[in-house]
Amino acid sequence: MANSPEIVRSIEELQQKIRKALKHAKKVRAEQATEESPAKQPTLGYVATMGAFHTGHATLLRRAREQNDVVVVSIFVNPLQFGPDEDFDRYPRDLNADVAVAVEAGVDFVFAPSVEEIYPGGKPRITVFSGELGQKFEGKTRPGHFDGALTVINKFFNILAPAAGRCTLNAYFGQKDAQQVSLVQRMVADFNHSVVVKPVAIVRDDNGLALSSRNEYLSEEEREKALVLSRTLALLREQILGRGIESLDLRSARDKINHAENVNLDYLEVVDPTTFEAPTADSTRILALVAAYVGETRLIDNMELI
Amino acid sequence: MANSPEIVRSIEELQQKIRKALKHAKKVRAEQATEESPAKQPTLGYVATMGAFHTGHATLLRRAREQNDVVVVSIFVNPLQFGPDEDFDRYPRDLNADVAVAVEAGVDFVFAPSVEEIYPGGKPRITVFSGELGQKFEGKTRPGHFDGALTVINKFFNILAPAAGRCTLNAYFGQKDAQQVSLVQRMVADFNHSVVVKPVAIVRDDNGLALSSRNEYLSEEEREKALVLSRTLALLREQILGRGIESLDLRSARDKINHAENVNLDYLEVVDPTTFEAPTADSTRILALVAAYVGETRLIDNMELI
Repeated sequence: MANSPEIVRSIEELQQKIRKALKHAKKVRAEQATEESPAKQPTLGYVATMGAFHTGHATLLRRAREQNDVVVVSIFVNPLQFGPDEDFDRYPRDLNADVAVAVEAGVDFVFAPSVEEIYPGGKPRITVFSGELGQKFEGKTRPGHFDGALTVINKFFNILAPAAGRCTLNAYFGQKDAQQVSLVQRMVADFNHSVVVKPVAIVRDDNGLALSSRNEYLSEEEREKALVLSRTLALLREQILGRGIESLDLRSARDKINHAENVNLDYLEVVDPTTFEAPTADSTRILALVAAYVGETRLIDNMELI
Repeated sequence: MANSPEIVRSIEELQQKIRKALKHAKKVRAEQATEESPAKQPTLGYVATMGAFHTGHATLLRRAREQNDVVVVSIFVNPLQFGPDEDFDRYPRDLNADVAVAVEAGVDFVFAPSVEEIYPGGKPRITVFSGELGQKFEGKTRPGHFDGALTVINKFFNILAPAAGRCTLNAYFGQKDAQQVSLVQRMVADFNHSVVVKPVAIVRDDNGLALSSRNEYLSEEEREKALVLSRTLALLREQILGRGIESLDLRSARDKINHAENVNLDYLEVVDPTTFEAPTADSTRILALVAAYVGETRLIDNMELI
């Protein structure tokens, strides 16, 4: 709970610092405890990022700050989750700007390891396989993306969990990457991770555009064009709220996006967010997912319809 | 450190019992500490098995007992690591006999969960991928075998590590499954598991046959025939000791096995055990691997040549 977060480069140093900070938090809690409100275990909040912070990240960090005694953010542009033709090299990186956002949000530790620290022997031989769920939607367009993302998140969880010890480890993920949230929740269950996954709602700009680090690639004109995505999602929500699920007209919605100049739809689908399969009669939630190229930039968005 | 191990069925109960036992061990160590030899952290020893204990397992358990304060053995016939045409259903199961062996070895806890306890939602959606190393040798003949084995070992590590807390978790694996040992070591490194892998040498009967739960399938005559495997490995070791690596005659060795009546060779190869690739000029160790069918039963064996 320092005013300015420490930048940590090594796994071992991170673990030591977290242990020390949690021990301190425990002491503070014990001192403040009364008979009516006895001391609880402190908790560790974690936000996994690739840097290039925008208000969406700041929201994740603030949420973690509000709910935990010690807060860590990792900044790591993970080569494993980029395809060979993707934007790994030109992905925006600005550690100083990110640290300023982290300071503002009250983060304790910024973990910014090198690629060598995370993958000391080069590419890992043993990896996480994201299964059927990881091959759909984003996984279909970006083969291997979720395997790479889960492989590094699994590593970060295994780095943080022993440092958290008996303290609860809360991990915050933005709902903008809805499929990733679902996969991480699945991994935590399937791998018996001692981690609580906390999804955080999408942050949008005043026009409704979902915030994304890749929005930096957009020209002023493309930013305007990109609004068709969130507007189409909102339209679907109006349809379903007004006249029920049968009234959903996905075909017209897809046409609407494709007819926007300089916009090429990848997919627009509705799913049950717990399975990422088509909603059934039992589905209590329906999520609409969209991905499209605006100019050269691939954007995604999603919205809960019910 | 009870005289008779407790059989534990649930993950939560196991974690509680381990925590309690380690806490007790810590207290005992603190009481016995002197100024010259201050108390060290207790350690947790773990042996992952599919039951059907033979002397090889007993050796693993005794090694774990010698080196740790608290010892857990898991007995779980993992459906994920059997192919559709393999012997999952008829794999030998005898919990009472296994518990007797565990008692004798001084094990504290026998963790014998149901399939439902380990895979509550059915097959896990997110799994471990064993990579190139997992597709060779045993992985080639048994597609998916190592993915399944690593998936469950990863789960067991994640179940035990939080219970071990700051205490070292030592995991013992038999060198008979040399490829599995190598894969588990790789997974521990690649996944940042807080686990120390301890390989334990193969145990052989008086004739040299490597002990295996699957030896139960062999008739008296097949047991005799099976000796060609270990004898051929020993011959290769003699060749290399006597006249160097160039003298290795793998072709004759393969013929020798194939000419044995009722024995069909699957593979006989030499590898660098750190990579499971062909030995190079830099290799400081060379491992010979063999797999063959003796009658209907598939057996494996291996031997360090240098």
